[in-house]
Amino acid sequence: MIAAEILTTGDELLRGDVVNTNAAWLATRLKQLGAQLCRVVTVGDALPALTGALAEALPRCQLLLVSGGLGPTADDRTTEAVARVASNLPLELHAEALDAMRARFARGNYPFTPNNEKQAYLPRGATLLPNAHGTAPGFMLRVGGCLVVCLPGVPHELKGIFEEEVVPRLTAELALAPALVHSLNVFGLGESQLDHRLTDLLQLCDPGGCQVTLHYRTSFPENRVLLVVCPGEGGEPEARAVMERLSAEARARLGRHVFGVDEQSFPEAVVGALRRCGASLALAESCTGGQAADLLTSAAGSSEVFSLGVVAYSNEFKQRLLGVPQQVLADHGAVSRECVEAMALGVRALAGATYGVAISGVAGPSGGTPDKPVGTVHFALAAPDGRVRHLHRVFPFDRLRVKRLSAYTALALTLHECRGEASLSGDLFEGRWAPRASEAGR
Amino acid sequence: MIAAEILTTGDELLRGDVVNTNAAWLATRLKQLGAQLCRVVTVGDALPALTGALAEALPRCQLLLVSGGLGPTADDRTTEAVARVASNLPLELHAEALDAMRARFARGNYPFTPNNEKQAYLPRGATLLPNAHGTAPGFMLRVGGCLVVCLPGVPHELKGIFEEEVVPRLTAELALAPALVHSLNVFGLGESQLDHRLTDLLQLCDPGGCQVTLHYRTSFPENRVLLVVCPGEGGEPEARAVMERLSAEARARLGRHVFGVDEQSFPEAVVGALRRCGASLALAESCTGGQAADLLTSAAGSSEVFSLGVVAYSNEFKQRLLGVPQQVLADHGAVSRECVEAMALGVRALAGATYGVAISGVAGPSGGTPDKPVGTVHFALAAPDGRVRHLHRVFPFDRLRVKRLSAYTALALTLHECRGEASLSGDLFEGRWAPRASEAGR
Repeated sequence: MIAAEILTTGDELLRGDVVNTNAAWLATRLKQLGAQLCRVVTVGDALPALTGALAEALPRCQLLLVSGGLGPTADDRTTEAVARVASNLPLELHAEALDAMRARFARGNYPFTPNNEKQAYLPRGATLLPNAHGTAPGFMLRVGGCLVVCLPGVPHELKGIFEEEVVPRLTAELALAPALVHSLNVFGLGESQLDHRLTDLLQLCDPGGCQVTLHYRTSFPENRVLLVVCPGEGGEPEARAVMERLSAEARARLGRHVFGVDEQSFPEAVVGALRRCGASLALAESCTGGQAADLLTSAAGSSEVFSLGVVAYSNEFKQRLLGVPQQVLADHGAVSRECVEAMALGVRALAGATYGVAISGVAGPSGGTPDKPVGTVHFALAAPDGRVRHLHRVFPFDRLRVKRLSAYTALALTLHECRGEASLSGDLFEGRWAPRASEAGR
Repeated sequence: MIAAEILTTGDELLRGDVVNTNAAWLATRLKQLGAQLCRVVTVGDALPALTGALAEALPRCQLLLVSGGLGPTADDRTTEAVARVASNLPLELHAEALDAMRARFARGNYPFTPNNEKQAYLPRGATLLPNAHGTAPGFMLRVGGCLVVCLPGVPHELKGIFEEEVVPRLTAELALAPALVHSLNVFGLGESQLDHRLTDLLQLCDPGGCQVTLHYRTSFPENRVLLVVCPGEGGEPEARAVMERLSAEARARLGRHVFGVDEQSFPEAVVGALRRCGASLALAESCTGGQAADLLTSAAGSSEVFSLGVVAYSNEFKQRLLGVPQQVLADHGAVSRECVEAMALGVRALAGATYGVAISGVAGPSGGTPDKPVGTVHFALAAPDGRVRHLHRVFPFDRLRVKRLSAYTALALTLHECRGEASLSGDLFEGRWAPRASEAGR
């Protein structure tokens, strides 16, 4: 396997002004491309720091990805540093780079300054990596046994050049064997529960000649299970077969907690499920303050399945708009099964939607009581046949996480209902069905 | 200035499963404490990688912060690696660490396994850094001229130990001169606009013997201007005086775009402003899908100023709930000045709130027309005296950013109105006042 390193540069990283997301993104891509990332180093903009870090890295790896320091200002010295460690190669004006930059400035009607011309000087023998997303072109250069690839530090430019210019050249220049990567996207199981369910997965699924790994990526409250298969002598066909077996077994074990795969987002899964069953959703929110509606509408096309959300933050509007009986609020309070069931029925009727879903809870930091501590949240889903499903949870988190987890839970209830998975039980979403409720008298 | 480095460890960082937020957080704290961060290195869990990175860093710095690898499993080898590079110091059972760990397990009713005991072995002579937030204690050890501080990799444990155990010891062990840091929190100006307005700030404000820097931290769509003053011979009193001059001048130049300072969040600023003027807010949202309400209610105490949000995603509910005349929708469409003004008046009347604020736009990716391209958003604020303020913007961003920027803009309109800043103009929030509108006939 090719040994790779990443060198990210910039004073802003050393001050902590910027979180180094470029390193994580490049790390993921290297893993997928079948290279072995051994080290990530970050230094500032000073030339000695850059040349020092470059000179140390070169003998350790066959591929060195460098980000940042390609801009037009005096602070941007990556090109100069690379030329120095490459036996003091001269910098030469690269005509194609200059033309592309001039054309870009002309299109945008920006003045082209001498500063910008600096960006078109590359070490002699370097390969230009055109930048379709910004002004600073990248370049690659072989220095001894190491291929050095220099990319701009602006994340979307770095990603664009990497995908469009670097990947095709890398697979040609280096003997990379890209790995197959498949992601199962999960809500409702934590990392330790995932690990428990999948612990013997790799033993049970015959990997043939492939190297198989499994890992987890958390973005609260979602988890992604990443299955990675590096092809062996059987090549890609064998790797695909191994991946299919792994994926099928993992899905069987995780069940309905898998909301989607690969790039599919949670809101897209919910919108897709509603569409497929020809249903619509209306939302009545209290403690989530509109976050469930916001989450749902982050998916393009959500307007086909969603037309109304009511954020009834006070009791007054739970009564006036959603028809929660005053007696329910007096007897049980707004954070109760009775209240969310009435809210769900109310918003469903108001919107004329297939499903009405309601959320009411104590997000904190204050407002908790011994009976209803901070994190207590009630959910209800009102379905077409008059059924009302109720769910009660106490989330041990702070205000922002209680809101976020509650918004997800409300949409997950909807997703499982659409998929006919609602009767499954035994975990975060175990619910119980209320007796058939009447919508009369509301 | 003390030269510092950070060594973050863990295979998950090299796979890109985790973004290295610990490094950015520690970098910020080092800057504030008056140390100079020179390099950040990330390696995996293997012992040779750890000892190699440690041995290289030791001669370069006086302070080395190490994170990760203190857990109970065979993968956790940081303690062993530090002992090796410190002339092969023996690992010794630290009685206080063991007692603290046993007590923690007993409180949580967890079984204490031999694995866990491993975490109480420290290099001979190390200083224990008790962990009040998890099981893995940290430690610090002087190795030659370098103070090595080992912290767990779990972010909240790392932060807790750092603040509670490391900071007091660092200021004693090293001659640190903590810097004063003050943040002006801005919405409505981009980084280049900030830079333009503040470009000569440092020249104009006499820094005395202090070293003064200014930088920017962006978290879309907010920007923070960080003012950093490192005390000189005049000590902290001089530094405080310099900071006061700097801050006053910067605030004067940025005007109402400064919504808060230091830790104050944007929603907290809006809720605070509404409270101070005894006002309440109701929201009518279309393209933002509830995000303005969600943003507002992320601030604790928001229920005092907010009671109702309506997410009228379809035209039907803009008419039925908010009273937008059918003729307005027919003549001007939902994305129009006329529609948002009617929505703002409608939701204000429905909620009986001081202010009604409405948002309607084309978030994309589809739905744009030549007249109303993707990113077109209209805003309106209805005030008690019948005034309606209107704002029209075309945001050149994708769906998620259009939603986010629109939610912020709607709340910023409210903030400026409460603060009596609404007549300022010349930038992102320049609005125009509609003729006195009538609420009759609705």
